This record gives sequence, structure tokens and C-alpha cells, in this order.
Amino acid sequence: YEYQAEELTYFRGLDAVTLDGHNIILRSNIEIAEEVPIALREGAQGVGLFRTEFLYMKRKCVPSEDEQVEAYREIIESMAPHPVTIRTLDVGGDKLVSDIDLSDEANPAMGLRAIRFSLKEKILFKVQLRAILRASAHGKARILFPMITGVAEIKSCKNLLNEVKRELAEEGHAFDADIEIGIMIETPAAALVTELLAREVDFLSVGTNDLIQYCLAVDRGNEHVAYLYEPLHPAVLRALRMICRAAQQAGVMVGICGEMAADPLYTLVLLGLGFDEWSMNAPFISQVKRIIRQVYRPEAEQLVAELFELGSAPEAARRLAGEMNRRF
Amino acid sequence: YEYQAEELTYFRGLDAVTLDGHNIILRSNIEIAEEVPIALREGAQGVGLFRTEFLYMKRKCVPSEDEQVEAYREIIESMAPHPVTIRTLDVGGDKLVSDIDLSDEANPAMGLRAIRFSLKEKILFKVQLRAILRASAHGKARILFPMITGVAEIKSCKNLLNEVKRELAEEGHAFDADIEIGIMIETPAAALVTELLAREVDFLSVGTNDLIQYCLAVDRGNEHVAYLYEPLHPAVLRALRMICRAAQQAGVMVGICGEMAADPLYTLVLLGLGFDEWSMNAPFISQVKRIIRQVYRPEAEQLVAELFELGSAPEAARRLAGEMNRRF
Ligand SMILES: [Mg+2]
Ligand SMILES: [Mg+2]
Repeated sequence: YEYQAEELTYFRGLDAVTLDGHNIILRSNIEIAEEVPIALREGAQGVGLFRTEFLYMKRKCVPSEDEQVEAYREIIESMAPHPVTIRTLDVGGDKLVSDIDLSDEANPAMGLRAIRFSLKEKILFKVQLRAILRASAHGKARILFPMITGVAEIKSCKNLLNEVKRELAEEGHAFDADIEIGIMIETPAAALVTELLAREVDFLSVGTNDLIQYCLAVDRGNEHVAYLYEPLHPAVLRALRMICRAAQQAGVMVGICGEMAADPLYTLVLLGLGFDEWSMNAPFISQVKRIIRQVYRPEAEQLVAELFELGSAPEAARRLAGEMNRRF
Repeated sequence: YEYQAEELTYFRGLDAVTLDGHNIILRSNIEIAEEVPIALREGAQGVGLFRTEFLYMKRKCVPSEDEQVEAYREIIESMAPHPVTIRTLDVGGDKLVSDIDLSDEANPAMGLRAIRFSLKEKILFKVQLRAILRASAHGKARILFPMITGVAEIKSCKNLLNEVKRELAEEGHAFDADIEIGIMIETPAAALVTELLAREVDFLSVGTNDLIQYCLAVDRGNEHVAYLYEPLHPAVLRALRMICRAAQQAGVMVGICGEMAADPLYTLVLLGLGFDEWSMNAPFISQVKRIIRQVYRPEAEQLVAELFELGSAPEAARRLAGEMNRRF
């Protein structure tokens, strides 16, 4: 079921629609503006995840507001009318110029990173929010907050965003006053309380890489335990199902932007679980789309129900690979 | 609701029974044999968690099988007829003499530790299992495996245990052939698939400290994020409820041995959630027992239902503290 790129060019201009007419939105993950032409060529319906870390890293000082506005504006304009989902800074302070010394964190993955860092370094955070808002005047932008674990963090983000909006309005800057905000669901806590979080935002985006790591308490960069990182672990499937069901009940769009979205092995699973928006590196869009266009959604739902009957990742992986090899 | 020790001596000889006759088993967490007299004095019904790390640490070489047998036997004999729950080694190799170099682990809490380490260092692990089994001839021992995330790990442990039993039988050693085995539920994955894991074991023990940390992706030893460690976070309460319900449906006893068990603030919550066996440092037993003896279990269940209606840890903490101050 993995095709060569040249076999897939046919799919670039087509919708990602199942045989029974269910539409999936396929977007691109990007890190730098240079990836935009590839995303456009591959038919991405916008950017589902713009990682802004690149702007901040490997430099002497943090990027100025104007510099960020330019970076965001360029991408937003080229993607219009599709949305560009800008994720706020998703690193720990150890990766940046910072007054907070984080070199002594015993477990940085469970430390002061992502939204925790932004909410501590409020000035830095407000500059980024100002830049995103100012850029939002040039097309359709969305804001995505990483590593949320509870409602309190979302409320802090929204308060800061409103403060920034007032400032910009007073200063006479144009911006999208109704800019959509979303959160990453990538901690087990967020998966467990998705419906509480969903009430506070316009969209959700599941970060499967981190969600799997925290669920299984496995740092997959650690060679000694990488074997435990299993996307089809029954606990992971259950967490994903809980998230999708809670999002549907709340009437909020749920996306996925982890590596699972780009791997055609998981396409039927994600379709069956009910993800609305999938974001991946652009070169993978066509092969995922090709599979989506060849199935009825209830078939995928049936397959997922079958996977839930299996008690381990290896069994689920065998069942899934068998199905994929048989059909595609 | 926190009493002085001398006011509580009255409760030492009494059962931990609710006004409607529901019995809770209160056991002691211990680390060294010197804690046994305190546990006995405080009326602990056995040891719910014997941390064996102390035997292994701050020394030049790992403890011999005979040395371990002696250490376990001493505690098992003094606790008889109550059980002593011996948790197998729960550290990373960085704390031990080991051939595996773990000094480069970026996130040791998500690395090669606890059961992962034991399953890699099988010789070390088998020596510990042999020692526990040999000591089990002298009273009632139970084996507890830490940091389980899936059925495969339990099966590996059981296979090794059976291998060791065969060896011991051939060598003519006495041991409890029906020794009970249990697992720690302390990863989000284990909480999500408790009913799959429960089928494989005789009992479960929830480690709230780690469960909370992994759920929230928070290292509570990290001063920058310790504020996010919230035992009453709605996600934590949900995880605990999922575990208790799954254990009840599987007909398996579910215990708790994290710090929540020892804090009287949480006594009504844990009673309402349905934990059967609570293990804590012995000096806390009487104050927890005092509360249990003054309530009807349905009251606690009602309180838990109310906490589940609240959307954040601070709200739940206020509601709970109000109730505790009003009643005790
Ligand atoms: Mg992440
Ligand atoms: Mg632990």
C-alpha cells in the first residue's frame, strides 16, 4: 500500500473523499516558508501545523515582533483562502535564550516546556501572539496551543490573547478578531478530559507522538525502551477513541498532526476513529488520499471495532497489515 | 481532620470499617525491616508495598540471593499471617551497578527503569524472584511488578517466575507455589487497559504518584512545573475511576499505595472510588482509619460523584476541604 510518488500525482487535485462521500481535510505540517510550494503542489488544504520553533532557534536573540509578522504573513498569504494553523512555541527554555535556567531538569519532557514555558515567559508569549494576530489580517490564521493539560491553561492563554487584541486595537493594527483557537491533545490528561477542554476552543489537534510517549511513559528517543513505543497499543487506541468521541459530542473539529497521520498503515484506523482534519508533511498527502478515496467509511469503522477486540499491539498490527496488504 | 498521634492510639486495634459495615484493608509501606515493629504497633494488616530498592542501593555489588532471602524472610515472618507484598526492583540502572550505561538517558522517568530494567537484566531479576519465592515458604508473600504498560510485560514476568519455580522445585527448595502476583497501575496506559491486565494477575496496586506525573506529563520534582501536579485534576479522578471500575468488573482486588492513600484529605475520595486495600506509611494508618469508621460508604460515593461534576482541581479541592472540615 505504499506507492511511489510519481504514481500518485493523479491524486493531487482530487478531494480526500470516501466512496460514501465523507470528506477528510488534508493539511500540511510545515516548519519553514520554503515548504509552502510543496504543500500547494500536493494539494494541501492549508497548514494544519506550523511549527514556529525554527524561528526561535539557532540564533542569538528571540525574533522581533515584526520579523515574526513577516514570517507568518508570507505563509498565510500563500495559503489563502486555506487556513494556516500556527502553533505557539513548543520547546523548553533550554533550547532558547532565557533567564530561566532549565539545564538542571531531570526529565525535560515532563518539565517547563511548550505552553508552560510560554505562560511563564509572558512577554515572549505576548510578542508571538501579537505577531500572529497582526499576520491574521492577511488571510486565515488559526492559533494552536501545545501541551495543554487543563482548562486553567486555556483560560490563561485566552486572557493573554484578549489583552493582546485590546492592545492591537488601541494601536490601530488590523487583525482577525474572530481568529480560531485550538489546542494540542498530547498529554494523557487532555485525552481524559477532552470534553472539558473542547468547550473552551474552536478545534482540537491530537499530537500522537507525545500522546503515545506519555501514555506509555516511554521516551522513544531512548534506544533501550523504543520497543515499547506502539501506536497500536490498546491503551493508545482507547485514548484516541475517547478523544474523538468527546470532540464529536462537543461538536468540535478534531484533527491529528502526529506521524500516524502520514503513515498509510494507519489511514483506515484514523478514518474509522473519526478524525476530521489530518495534517502531515506534504509528500505523504497523496498516498493517504488514495486510500481514503477507495473505502467506505463504515468499513474503516468496522475495522477499528475489530482492532479494539484485540488485546495487544502486535495482534492489532498483524490484523491491520493483513487488511492493508489485501486491499491496497 | 488531622489529629495528633496520641489522640489516635485508640484506633490501633480496631478494624477500618465504615458505619455500613464495609471493610477496608489498611497495610503498611515499608523500605527496611526496622519499620516492621511500627507497622505492627499501628495495626497494619500486612505490608502493601515493600520497596526492595534499599537492598540494592549504596553498595558495591548487588545483594546475593541468600542475603535477599534473609531480608524478605525476616519481614514475612514478623508479619504473618498477614501478607507482605514485595515489589521487584523499581529503579533505573543508573542507580545500580550495571553493564548498561543509562547515564545518557534524556528522560530517565520515561526510560529503562523498573520492570523494563528487570526484564532486560534477567539474571538479576531471576535472583530476586528466587529469593522472594524461597522466602515465601516462611509466611505469606505476594509479588508486585512495577511500571507495567501492557499484557506482554506481565507474560514475560510470569514466564520467568514459572522458570524459577521449576528450578527451585528441582533443587528441592520450599516455596509457595500459589504465590499471588500483582502489578502496579502507574502509567496512563495501564489505567486505560486495566481490565486486560487484571485478567493476568491476582491483584492490582495503583501508584498514584507516578500515575499523576505521567498523566499530566509533570515531573513533580521539577520546581518549575510542580504546581501542575494535582491529585484532584479531573483527568486523575477519571483515571482512578476507570481503574477501580475495571478491577471490580474483573473481580480483582485493587489497592492504592501512593501518597494519596496516607493523606486524610483524600480518604473519602478513595473510599468512594472503591479501593479495597490501602497501603501507606504506618504512622498514617490510624488517622485514615478514624475517618473511615465515621462514614457510610454511599456518602463517600456521593461526594465523589459531586467532584466529578467539577471541571478543575482547585474547585474539587475546595469542595473536598469544605466537606472534610465540616465533618471531621
Ligand atoms: Mg508535542
Ligand atoms: Mg513508580
